[in-house]
Amino acid sequence: MIELNFSNMMDEIIGRSGLSESTIKDFNKTAENAHAKIKKRLRPELAFLDLLYQDTPEIKNIAKYIRENTENFLLLGIGGSALGPRAILEAISPFHNLQRKPRVFIYDNVDPRTLKNILSFADLKTTSVNVISKSGSTAETAASFMILWDEMKKVLGGEAFRRFIITTDPEKGNLRRIVNEHCLMSLSIPPGVVGRYSVLSPVGLLLAEVIGTDSNELLKGARDMHEKCTEPDLLKNPAYLFGTLLYLMDKEKKRNIDVLVPYADSLKPLSEWFCQIWAESLGKEDKGLTPYPSLGTTDQHSQLQLWMEGPEDKVLIFIRVRDYGSDIKIPGVFKEVEGLSYLSGHTLSELIMAEEEATELALAKAKRPNMTIIVPEINAYHLGQLFHFFELSTAFTGFLYEINPFNQPGVEEGKSLTYGMMGKKGYEEKRKEVEAQRAKRDRWVI
Amino acid sequence: MIELNFSNMMDEIIGRSGLSESTIKDFNKTAENAHAKIKKRLRPELAFLDLLYQDTPEIKNIAKYIRENTENFLLLGIGGSALGPRAILEAISPFHNLQRKPRVFIYDNVDPRTLKNILSFADLKTTSVNVISKSGSTAETAASFMILWDEMKKVLGGEAFRRFIITTDPEKGNLRRIVNEHCLMSLSIPPGVVGRYSVLSPVGLLLAEVIGTDSNELLKGARDMHEKCTEPDLLKNPAYLFGTLLYLMDKEKKRNIDVLVPYADSLKPLSEWFCQIWAESLGKEDKGLTPYPSLGTTDQHSQLQLWMEGPEDKVLIFIRVRDYGSDIKIPGVFKEVEGLSYLSGHTLSELIMAEEEATELALAKAKRPNMTIIVPEINAYHLGQLFHFFELSTAFTGFLYEINPFNQPGVEEGKSLTYGMMGKKGYEEKRKEVEAQRAKRDRWVI
Repeated sequence: MIELNFSNMMDEIIGRSGLSESTIKDFNKTAENAHAKIKKRLRPELAFLDLLYQDTPEIKNIAKYIRENTENFLLLGIGGSALGPRAILEAISPFHNLQRKPRVFIYDNVDPRTLKNILSFADLKTTSVNVISKSGSTAETAASFMILWDEMKKVLGGEAFRRFIITTDPEKGNLRRIVNEHCLMSLSIPPGVVGRYSVLSPVGLLLAEVIGTDSNELLKGARDMHEKCTEPDLLKNPAYLFGTLLYLMDKEKKRNIDVLVPYADSLKPLSEWFCQIWAESLGKEDKGLTPYPSLGTTDQHSQLQLWMEGPEDKVLIFIRVRDYGSDIKIPGVFKEVEGLSYLSGHTLSELIMAEEEATELALAKAKRPNMTIIVPEINAYHLGQLFHFFELSTAFTGFLYEINPFNQPGVEEGKSLTYGMMGKKGYEEKRKEVEAQRAKRDRWVI
Repeated sequence: MIELNFSNMMDEIIGRSGLSESTIKDFNKTAENAHAKIKKRLRPELAFLDLLYQDTPEIKNIAKYIRENTENFLLLGIGGSALGPRAILEAISPFHNLQRKPRVFIYDNVDPRTLKNILSFADLKTTSVNVISKSGSTAETAASFMILWDEMKKVLGGEAFRRFIITTDPEKGNLRRIVNEHCLMSLSIPPGVVGRYSVLSPVGLLLAEVIGTDSNELLKGARDMHEKCTEPDLLKNPAYLFGTLLYLMDKEKKRNIDVLVPYADSLKPLSEWFCQIWAESLGKEDKGLTPYPSLGTTDQHSQLQLWMEGPEDKVLIFIRVRDYGSDIKIPGVFKEVEGLSYLSGHTLSELIMAEEEATELALAKAKRPNMTIIVPEINAYHLGQLFHFFELSTAFTGFLYEINPFNQPGVEEGKSLTYGMMGKKGYEEKRKEVEAQRAKRDRWVI
């Protein structure tokens, strides 16, 4: 099981910058209220908790078909439809495209240069395309789907229809309509499950299976984590405690930037996945915490200076890996150079773990709060634990802030303005608004 | 030339959240002081300004040798020694390893799993290794260098000596000593030039040439930018104005998170490069600005909600690209589905640019300050402009904060503790400190 070491958040260790045991214990009542909302499934979006108990034969079948019939797997999606799959891909199979098939391309933007590149080296004759959008109306995903639909038909004719797998709402939306009209393969994101809580739905599980990972391992990890988080008592519930500590650091210490620092290259996309769920769920009504995606040891040479001596507005969350699964010994070369030879005989694992521990301690000595999630090994089982840990924690923390952790009203205005500019019916006024604004903005340019 | 549109920072557009023209003009005196420090080269570290006028035949020769004799180029470095090269690689040659040779691997960590992977598919017989460390004592880089030194000698024997290119101080340090002892190829980072200001030294230029980019284009871009930034008058100097606006947003509006959002996949590493120079230069003495690496349109589905409705602590900096160099038309498919068909006939460029403009406007309407750097095209010339723009701006902003923008005293403690744990002579007490701390931390784990 993953563990949470929160010693460096406590006043016992870091003095007045830390929290006291009694503050946490006194918070149990508030925590119980938030827990009740989760337990009673107060909101339909808590359906993400049911994903843990799903059966996956359909996902496995489609993945088998993809693996046996194609050499490139192109995923079209953005936000929650891409970040979870990428976190799985990189954690389980780093450098995947240099060594394994089907190669995986995740296109989560509308950058024309990127898509041109992908089309230039993914032979469409041997490509399958997974289009992911819960609502079925995401503009970015729709645009790339339309392009691929056209291109695949040019190359494959009628066979193209058997190369699209649509992951969307079981009944509603543009994508479901297209699935029905063209008899496409499809997978369903259960009603209620919001994009950023969907990694353990077919959104993430299909990719997992395509790269040869048993999706049940991810689900088993998530279930085991859930079982560890059923009690409202904060000091026995790591997901709730994690959210509570960050909530209290915001409220009591004005620290509202939460930096996630995994000490493993392959967990950087997990950090970016966390940044979506934390930011979009909690950032509203002028409240919220700003999650920051980082990477150790790399960012010790980029961000550590700021963490150590910059404004007192951050909490550091390290992810320590106990076993990297492989190791390399630093050989006894350059013996005459004392500035280097101390490294000889150690392994890279020893060095990376020493740096992680040293960074924790250096921060604690500077009275800068930090905590550590300890992961025994990077595999599907522990990744499932991490996903569920953060998802449950996010929902719980949203309830502490008394906001809705499942909506994102702030993104609507930008969408409407885009619709206006792209000529969507009913958004004519929005277009005019953009054009009026352009004229005003000419003055302040250098 | 790149341009800076700062309209949405001004009170004329965003009301009380913005800055007034008079505030900026009144600031000219303070700006002149900072400018004088730069002009008089008050600090030796301002030597980065001289890089713009260097000759590059040596770099070109070594790059030619690498291109002609090897198929893999492995760069070992961390922080400033890796972020600049990666920003160049991704901007100029995205998906490089899937289509061009020599393939490039940048190893900027001590994750054993990553290095195992690289060693498994980079045939060392056809590999050259560029080791980059200004000081010559960076532990992470030293560790990977020692491993590669040993492995390359096993595979190549004496020929291995001709496959290492060391980029370091011209005279001092462990790496220079090794260059001299083993007669290795080397390039010099001029004295005074600090790691995070070194991208336009051989640190970044060698990689540029290895991937077939004329390093003089990068330098020419930087020189042209410098010429645009010689006057202290803020409204005529984009680099100074950029720093001033962010400084004033911190001081006057308590906005101290600066989010950089390029609307191009290939500029994401530039955003990470910026985050190092901005964080490590300015984050000290409990002051500083927190730079945040982002990406459009992708993060509209991850961070935009927080930017629009979260705490009022951010300034958004967009990078708009005028010409992506290639484009793709969205075809007229799914005509019967009104929710999608509005996209038909537009191009991906139109969509990504519309989204960028829509996001700016949506934020401005919500009175959230933002500005836009407009880049005509992504190429070496404009990349050189961007590097110099940010470097000059960082030094200038450091002087506004009255701190030293060239040191990083906060990282020393972590290094010392690591040395202690790795058994480096003279750091025995640090090891004891770590061990003592471990015992204390056992209580707060769940």
